[in-house]
Amino acid sequence: MKVVIAPDSFKESLSAKEVASAIAEGWQKVLPDTECVCIPMADGGEGTVQSLIDATKGRLQTVEVTAPLGNKIPAAFGISGDRNTAIIEMAAASGLHLAPPEQRNPLITTSYGTGELIKAALDEGVSKIILGIGGSATNDAGAGMLQALGAVFLNSGNQSIGFGGSSLIHTTYADFSRLDKRLQQVEIEVACDVDNPLCGEKGASAVFGPQKGATPAMVAELDHALNHFADIIFQYKGLDIRHCSGSGAAGGMGGGLLTLPNATLKSGVQIVVEAVNLAQAVRDADLVITGEGRMDAQSVHGKTPVGVAGVAKQYGKPVIAIVGCLREDYEAVYQAGIDAVFPIIRQLDTLENVLANGRSNLVSAAQNIAKLYQMQR
Amino acid sequence: MKVVIAPDSFKESLSAKEVASAIAEGWQKVLPDTECVCIPMADGGEGTVQSLIDATKGRLQTVEVTAPLGNKIPAAFGISGDRNTAIIEMAAASGLHLAPPEQRNPLITTSYGTGELIKAALDEGVSKIILGIGGSATNDAGAGMLQALGAVFLNSGNQSIGFGGSSLIHTTYADFSRLDKRLQQVEIEVACDVDNPLCGEKGASAVFGPQKGATPAMVAELDHALNHFADIIFQYKGLDIRHCSGSGAAGGMGGGLLTLPNATLKSGVQIVVEAVNLAQAVRDADLVITGEGRMDAQSVHGKTPVGVAGVAKQYGKPVIAIVGCLREDYEAVYQAGIDAVFPIIRQLDTLENVLANGRSNLVSAAQNIAKLYQMQR
Repeated sequence: MKVVIAPDSFKESLSAKEVASAIAEGWQKVLPDTECVCIPMADGGEGTVQSLIDATKGRLQTVEVTAPLGNKIPAAFGISGDRNTAIIEMAAASGLHLAPPEQRNPLITTSYGTGELIKAALDEGVSKIILGIGGSATNDAGAGMLQALGAVFLNSGNQSIGFGGSSLIHTTYADFSRLDKRLQQVEIEVACDVDNPLCGEKGASAVFGPQKGATPAMVAELDHALNHFADIIFQYKGLDIRHCSGSGAAGGMGGGLLTLPNATLKSGVQIVVEAVNLAQAVRDADLVITGEGRMDAQSVHGKTPVGVAGVAKQYGKPVIAIVGCLREDYEAVYQAGIDAVFPIIRQLDTLENVLANGRSNLVSAAQNIAKLYQMQR
Repeated sequence: MKVVIAPDSFKESLSAKEVASAIAEGWQKVLPDTECVCIPMADGGEGTVQSLIDATKGRLQTVEVTAPLGNKIPAAFGISGDRNTAIIEMAAASGLHLAPPEQRNPLITTSYGTGELIKAALDEGVSKIILGIGGSATNDAGAGMLQALGAVFLNSGNQSIGFGGSSLIHTTYADFSRLDKRLQQVEIEVACDVDNPLCGEKGASAVFGPQKGATPAMVAELDHALNHFADIIFQYKGLDIRHCSGSGAAGGMGGGLLTLPNATLKSGVQIVVEAVNLAQAVRDADLVITGEGRMDAQSVHGKTPVGVAGVAKQYGKPVIAIVGCLREDYEAVYQAGIDAVFPIIRQLDTLENVLANGRSNLVSAAQNIAKLYQMQR
């Protein structure tokens, strides 16, 4: 028999590859003849680079980039085993963790470093870039990213507007003609699982600004600045990014990316599902096992297990999820194609120990699931 | 289909009846047409009275007895639904919890109250008494229990030796002829899962004395006293209880009980298995589900799930265990007939909350087990 094992990582405990390997080990303790196909998965969020280079036998590449506050830092991105695809997590260059809590200020943070990562990916000659935009420290509508790629934004004194969300208000002129020409040949898939617009009550500044350090006054200032920037983009590019679904993601990064020639916003897990060709692996499988660190009612909104289950159900395959923890309200996942869910914690312990025991708990759970699966009846 | 659900209690959380009911509820959420036969189980330890009155639709009876330190307390025992069997836990009358920690002293504690419970059971006209002897505060070789039932132990001054392990050394004369005559007609099954002899290195005083408050000097004194008492019993009864397997259980209570006409020491879970007629229920079942609060390497030594599995395997039935916690070294249970084990904890939490969530965690686990059990393949 053939089992496809396609889990997400268990955050702070195991990578997706390690999770898959532990599940395979537990399963094969019971059914050693099973062909276990391990496919590390992700949903476009943290861990996506690692999972996709693990899934494609790719590698990490590190370059120097500009951090949100302007300092230089090393940042890594992934290159798939066939060298055709780069995988970038915006957080590697522009993440909130790169700004010390007391310096978090979305008026001044820039997404420039993410543009530099995209540029480095272009230098590798890839034909596709997968870009996860979660966890950013920025609220600049991706202006910094566009600047790194060659776009020019000037103020009334014909000077660059500089960095940061608050600078956008000074933009009077935009020039997209100097964008890196290689972007014409490269498809950019942006992992985006929110539908927030750029501005307004549900916009980038109001919804995501506070978690990046914005006070109510800063939210108002940023929302005003992004509105103005959208006007400028419409004036010089003929594109209204203000109301596009997802343009408010990652401090407006979603909107900024839409000004690039071949960028599309898509569900993160769908991007990963296609990148690893999950359907091909699932087609002739007998069973699909997925998993994530924590399953709850939110899991039906673009998380890995439900994305995996969606593919499995296209082929009528049963799906089991193995999870680190399982919240009260998880049962919505049944409607999303997951047939049974098993938590792995075997005893109360400190969080530290539970995270450290993740692998052995996974092996044990998979072993018992295999024992039940093969049970005579 | 028919599922027999025969778990132990989850200590400090749910009675065996409540555990069984929660498992049935979870299972029937998935497979509502299943006939779920709930049989609350026990292993002769704490909870045995409750499980057996729940399993047989019996009732509790409360009487006044003598506590280990001589004070009077109310103590309950069970009477089966058919009124033929009394179920007694020695701890109800002579338990360690009945002596405040600072007063625990096995030199003076008596098992007299347990004898009073047996007498009360005889008053109910039962034909069988099931007696669990775990958790006692006493180290008197059951002398107090025998005294309550009419046996006479005198010192050289022709006075009663009184109570407590240290008094046994003064015994010069024993008279068993005045034992309650009804004991001739009643079978006493003593739940005993240890094989310790009455005396010596592996005897009652050395192995169990310290947990009852005995210092090394007290252990030596008690071992000496029990040895002497065994001599007296041999002299007046012609029975050598010193080396009988299990005579050292419960401070020598095992040995004392062997002087009664129809008392036998047996595995606790075997006694319960027979009392609830588990084999009858299992014979035409498709699946047996058992469980206990904590499963570990010790579980193969006379714990409920393994006892249940033994019966199930006589009829070739698959066995699933659902457990509160599952220790590292649990895998020995596979050889003991348990086919698969699932822990129920869904997330890290305080012990208090985990115990409080026991029921919903059980329902959830049983539901997912049923989902996997019914999975197409």
